[in-house]
Amino acid sequence: MKIAIDGMGGDNAPVAVIDGAIQALKAYDDIQLYITGPEEVLNIELAKYTYPKEKVIVVDAKEVISTNEHPVMALRKKKDSSIVKALNLVKEGICDAVVSGGSTGAFLAGCTLIIGRIKGIERPALAPIMPGRRGKFMIVDVGANVDCKPSFLVQFAKMGKIYYQKVFSVKNPTIGLINIGEEEEKGNELTKAAFKLLKEESSINFKGNIEPREIPTGDTNILVSDGFVGNTALKMYEGSASSILGIIKDEVLKSSIISKIGVVLLKPVLKNIMKKFDYKEYGGAPFLGVDGICIKAHGSSDARAFKNSIKQTKIFYDNNVLKDIRNEFSSEN
Amino acid sequence: MKIAIDGMGGDNAPVAVIDGAIQALKAYDDIQLYITGPEEVLNIELAKYTYPKEKVIVVDAKEVISTNEHPVMALRKKKDSSIVKALNLVKEGICDAVVSGGSTGAFLAGCTLIIGRIKGIERPALAPIMPGRRGKFMIVDVGANVDCKPSFLVQFAKMGKIYYQKVFSVKNPTIGLINIGEEEEKGNELTKAAFKLLKEESSINFKGNIEPREIPTGDTNILVSDGFVGNTALKMYEGSASSILGIIKDEVLKSSIISKIGVVLLKPVLKNIMKKFDYKEYGGAPFLGVDGICIKAHGSSDARAFKNSIKQTKIFYDNNVLKDIRNEFSSEN
Repeated sequence: MKIAIDGMGGDNAPVAVIDGAIQALKAYDDIQLYITGPEEVLNIELAKYTYPKEKVIVVDAKEVISTNEHPVMALRKKKDSSIVKALNLVKEGICDAVVSGGSTGAFLAGCTLIIGRIKGIERPALAPIMPGRRGKFMIVDVGANVDCKPSFLVQFAKMGKIYYQKVFSVKNPTIGLINIGEEEEKGNELTKAAFKLLKEESSINFKGNIEPREIPTGDTNILVSDGFVGNTALKMYEGSASSILGIIKDEVLKSSIISKIGVVLLKPVLKNIMKKFDYKEYGGAPFLGVDGICIKAHGSSDARAFKNSIKQTKIFYDNNVLKDIRNEFSSEN
Repeated sequence: MKIAIDGMGGDNAPVAVIDGAIQALKAYDDIQLYITGPEEVLNIELAKYTYPKEKVIVVDAKEVISTNEHPVMALRKKKDSSIVKALNLVKEGICDAVVSGGSTGAFLAGCTLIIGRIKGIERPALAPIMPGRRGKFMIVDVGANVDCKPSFLVQFAKMGKIYYQKVFSVKNPTIGLINIGEEEEKGNELTKAAFKLLKEESSINFKGNIEPREIPTGDTNILVSDGFVGNTALKMYEGSASSILGIIKDEVLKSSIISKIGVVLLKPVLKNIMKKFDYKEYGGAPFLGVDGICIKAHGSSDARAFKNSIKQTKIFYDNNVLKDIRNEFSSEN
């Protein structure tokens, strides 16, 4: 399998990207990495490691797209950027997958504009996996489509189902519509219309409306929503976890010596919890609906997160997720 | 001050309502309570307590609106319900405020239909106060208006400002727009248009877009959004707190005896944290923009939560919040 990697994408690029890439090479025999970015910069980083040289191809790209640039304008202007070059490798059939920790806007727009949508897909969707209390859950979409039509959400559900089914070997994953009430008639114009469509889809295991309060339990495998609401749910979850653990820390600092001893005794437990909430364990978020394996790594990814994002492209590839999505939607149009 | 109380509103009504009402009577000298509901039922509950009889007036109401009923239909049909009777007491000028833990939909619709909006207000908004890491924050709106126009959000900001300023004595509270990116051009159609309007309002301390991840820090006092997004943020916060504390419990149960001792030593700290996240400490959510003091208590309120909701009407009243909102908007139209 050949994987294109945006060598300059992310807050810790290129150091963490190269480090993660080398870790992935050592863990998986059957991959070859095409890393894009300024040749001289990447080579300096690569020179720090020993690895089978034939497994890494540096693809020179002189430009970098920053997160502050307008995505589509930047893609047009910076043809020689690490993101564009990495996406082209997939478009041209040289690579089977692409990973980037760079500008989310530019990467998603680039996936759609350069690689293109799968036939029959109205809008691709970004679909991260999150840790819940009783299991992993996936939100589709978390920001690629801020204003949605009801039909988009049905496609999100179908794509999410295929991904979750194949990647986590769950036969008939449960699907919920994020809504502010359980009853069918609750919600805004979008969710009311989407509920009707989802209910009619016999191919999915639709559980109805799921209130945001229930999302973190992990009892529903896949949650669909427009990208604005999905992003709000995702970021609120991350923010809550971080603030709550922060409050615990604040309170412990103010507390008695006895409580402080308590924390020391609890260290192994707290470590397990932190691990559970560590997105770096989960790799990146697949961008479902584009005609290629496209993984958006977190902007603040470290080497382990990049390694796991590469692992994720492998799982995506080995399980034929792309072919299944193509088949599902080719029959629709 | 005379306060109308929906005696049958909430999962624990009327027991917890009456208990909380009596607690409030004992704490505050200058209140008189009008409690609505089936006379015989309320009298049986009241008979359990000793209190100055002249301070409680039972207003007979034979019907109850349940949370499953269609709000507007139920209001029309059940003129003799505890919610409608309580709202009428404010409308008729007999009471200065109303508290209900009953059906949110029926209460909000009833406030608007029976009591009416303040002149100049397009849409009233539900605005709960939440505990953040470094301070309290308020989200306006959390569900009264699922589909919003940009101008509604400007009014939410102005009403929120007056409430926060008066009730928490903060001179110039900070206001943020909940959005999925920090930059002005980020977001959906609503937030992009609302940003432009909010930026132009010199009377408010507008901090720009606030990403949901930042909300739980409490660094921004007032967050405005449409009711769907606001509800998602609120419920996701509640759900995350509960799931994260649940995960800690799960991990501790699986852990060694040493970790379990750690938890015992940490008990006082954990208790403080639970208190911080306990909505019962905060009373209910004010419904801002209606021409009366209307407090929606949580459906699962216990006696303490009802007592604090009654306290909240007092603070609302004593600080002339209603008059200030009226003045602010009377000049607009």
